Amino acid sequence: MRLQPTTLRTDRKSTDTSKTVGLTVFPREEFDARVAACKQRMREMELDVLFITDPANMHYLTGYDGWSFYVPQCVVVALDEAEPIWIGRGIDAPGVPVTTYLKPENVYSYLDSYVHKDDCHPMDYIADVLIQRGFSDKTIGVEMDSFYFTAACYKLMEYWMPDATLRDCKFLVNWQRLIKSEKEITLMRQAGEIMDRVMTAALDNIAPGVRQCDLAALIRQVQVEGTDEFGGDFPAIEPMLPSGVHTSIPHLYWTDQPFKAGELTVMELAAARHHYHCPMARTVFLGDPPPKHLNEFAKVAEEGIEASLAVVKEGIQAEDMETAFRETLAKYGYVKASRMGYSTGLNFPPDWGEHTVSIRPGDKTVLRENMTFHMIPGLWGDDLGLEISQTFRVTKNGYEPFGTIPRKLFVKS
Amino acid sequence: MRLQPTTLRTDRKSTDTSKTVGLTVFPREEFDARVAACKQRMREMELDVLFITDPANMHYLTGYDGWSFYVPQCVVVALDEAEPIWIGRGIDAPGVPVTTYLKPENVYSYLDSYVHKDDCHPMDYIADVLIQRGFSDKTIGVEMDSFYFTAACYKLMEYWMPDATLRDCKFLVNWQRLIKSEKEITLMRQAGEIMDRVMTAALDNIAPGVRQCDLAALIRQVQVEGTDEFGGDFPAIEPMLPSGVHTSIPHLYWTDQPFKAGELTVMELAAARHHYHCPMARTVFLGDPPPKHLNEFAKVAEEGIEASLAVVKEGIQAEDMETAFRETLAKYGYVKASRMGYSTGLNFPPDWGEHTVSIRPGDKTVLRENMTFHMIPGLWGDDLGLEISQTFRVTKNGYEPFGTIPRKLFVKS
Repeated sequence: MRLQPTTLRTDRKSTDTSKTVGLTVFPREEFDARVAACKQRMREMELDVLFITDPANMHYLTGYDGWSFYVPQCVVVALDEAEPIWIGRGIDAPGVPVTTYLKPENVYSYLDSYVHKDDCHPMDYIADVLIQRGFSDKTIGVEMDSFYFTAACYKLMEYWMPDATLRDCKFLVNWQRLIKSEKEITLMRQAGEIMDRVMTAALDNIAPGVRQCDLAALIRQVQVEGTDEFGGDFPAIEPMLPSGVHTSIPHLYWTDQPFKAGELTVMELAAARHHYHCPMARTVFLGDPPPKHLNEFAKVAEEGIEASLAVVKEGIQAEDMETAFRETLAKYGYVKASRMGYSTGLNFPPDWGEHTVSIRPGDKTVLRENMTFHMIPGLWGDDLGLEISQTFRVTKNGYEPFGTIPRKLFVKS
Repeated sequence: MRLQPTTLRTDRKSTDTSKTVGLTVFPREEFDARVAACKQRMREMELDVLFITDPANMHYLTGYDGWSFYVPQCVVVALDEAEPIWIGRGIDAPGVPVTTYLKPENVYSYLDSYVHKDDCHPMDYIADVLIQRGFSDKTIGVEMDSFYFTAACYKLMEYWMPDATLRDCKFLVNWQRLIKSEKEITLMRQAGEIMDRVMTAALDNIAPGVRQCDLAALIRQVQVEGTDEFGGDFPAIEPMLPSGVHTSIPHLYWTDQPFKAGELTVMELAAARHHYHCPMARTVFLGDPPPKHLNEFAKVAEEGIEASLAVVKEGIQAEDMETAFRETLAKYGYVKASRMGYSTGLNFPPDWGEHTVSIRPGDKTVLRENMTFHMIPGLWGDDLGLEISQTFRVTKNGYEPFGTIPRKLFVKS
């Protein structure tokens, strides 16, 4: 039995990128505004220099792109310098003029003999550049909790620059990314369009007997194929597809096993456009009618997310969304202990969350127009999990959803 | 024009996993042997406790799996404890009994209120567990250069455990992974089978006018679809597909633009089976005949990799492979400055390399049977790059290739 032939097409238009910086889609002015805003925050935090290793933050400030973040690399912003500096691996340096606006004299690269060696480290070179540029006695903000600023990088920076003051910049650029520009919103809207195709393909094709890996393969294809007008990007997380009793384990991927009749499957997926994400989770039961307890569980989840979305608008606090959800749950005697969402947008593996605002008690961030969230109030029992989520943009009076698949438990007979 | 319909199939068998631990494919005895070997190395390095955060190393020692490495988590091996300890996030803890052999009393999880907060950190909880288990004054090996042991994690461990001695374990478990078991070799061989399908699909479908994103989508599908007998896993790196002048930038991915006649495309891809990789790079020129200088460049690359593979066998040193390549290049007046390969096998994003042996001058690691490498002597000029690679296992008298696509420049008219 063969389902849903997918095809490789040659009749599609390509996107016009004539007015953008290199391979990115943002105009130079937008980068200049981002760097200016970053410097303003640096002044407020009394930082002379900012040392950025998070690939999303590097991309945000300069456009730099490429799968090179598995070796040390950075973008450095200094109050005394007009433009940022890029330092990375030699074979990745040719990517800088192609993806950024940086001038050649602000690009430094280390020899390949520094890579994965036990007697030297790329940070030896990077620290040397920082010293040459006159930063040896400055107050330097570092991303203490960035995946790509390892403990070794920190210790070596401390070792080579004893007169510098290293200070945690506390996700300075991540916070700066919280409110999206019109151009960023456009990309997330496009990601939403792709996401609808991805989830539709997944819901249409999941069936008893289909191997989980075959469905995951289809999902991965549709994510990148995109639409007739624009292609897709890789999401920062692989398809998460727990099925059966594994639905109580949200971050499992697919197996070789077939989906089974009478079982539930959670699909937490995303689509991305130029690294801007629209995540979406839906849950599907293979069998009609579903068991009574599942219908009841789904009713709580469905009513909960609608209650939570109903309070969204500029001016409320992040925790207000959680309160609305929690009160709905309480009516049915349920409690949820984990957070129910987070700020999303631009990111690289391993996470599409921005590590700033969380939708949970105590987060008093005031919502502003064009903040973007993934609201995902997952409910997990001992052997059962259910996720229905929504990515959206905050508006003056409510929200604009990215992705339009109905927020309900799907049932396939 | 529609090419190569791909299909979602429901007629495939699933793999027998009845004799394995949870969702992994290794028997309990293999994990016991790995932990025993790890403890032996700990004794040699005079470490009482080993704190593991690299998801590949966590998986290697316990089988633990799931896309949960974007929050702090660890596996702890102590000389005084029979079995490892897992510490991670609450919503990920149900994955431990499903993917590992660990006993419940060795599993600890932190509340979601620790995640992405500015007034507390998961390491606060993790350090507390380590202290409770009696490790506060021990010599603890940490992975100083693991992506998932950030500078903040290190500083907090130091803060909470002032009487402990923290010492870089120098990729202890990575080095342990260098020689593969028969079962691991089987997985890499299967990855090689999938890789042949992936590269065949890519070479068959690349053509002028095809959008790069559509080819990338197909590649991503075939990677995970696998074969009729077994499914594929996600590789640790997304398809790298630089085309035209971008071939001089090895780590770029696809764009929305179409492939063009008269242009070169480098495809550095991989397939994976249960996180074990077979990477493969091939280069294709769209146009026949290719320009003379390209043919000459290709001849050097082709002759170079064959010369390098010809010296492979147990007993040589890693650098001997590079010498053979360099001498071939020198005949034609070329020089290559970057390393030409590395140990590969088990890994998670963002890298499929193992961060141990490199194929380059000065690496005197003596090759042993069942070490596995990705030999990738990429040649990059100012506006031209060419990659032809081979993943292989070292044998007594030579090598066993994983993936069988001819090692040559492909030309499509």
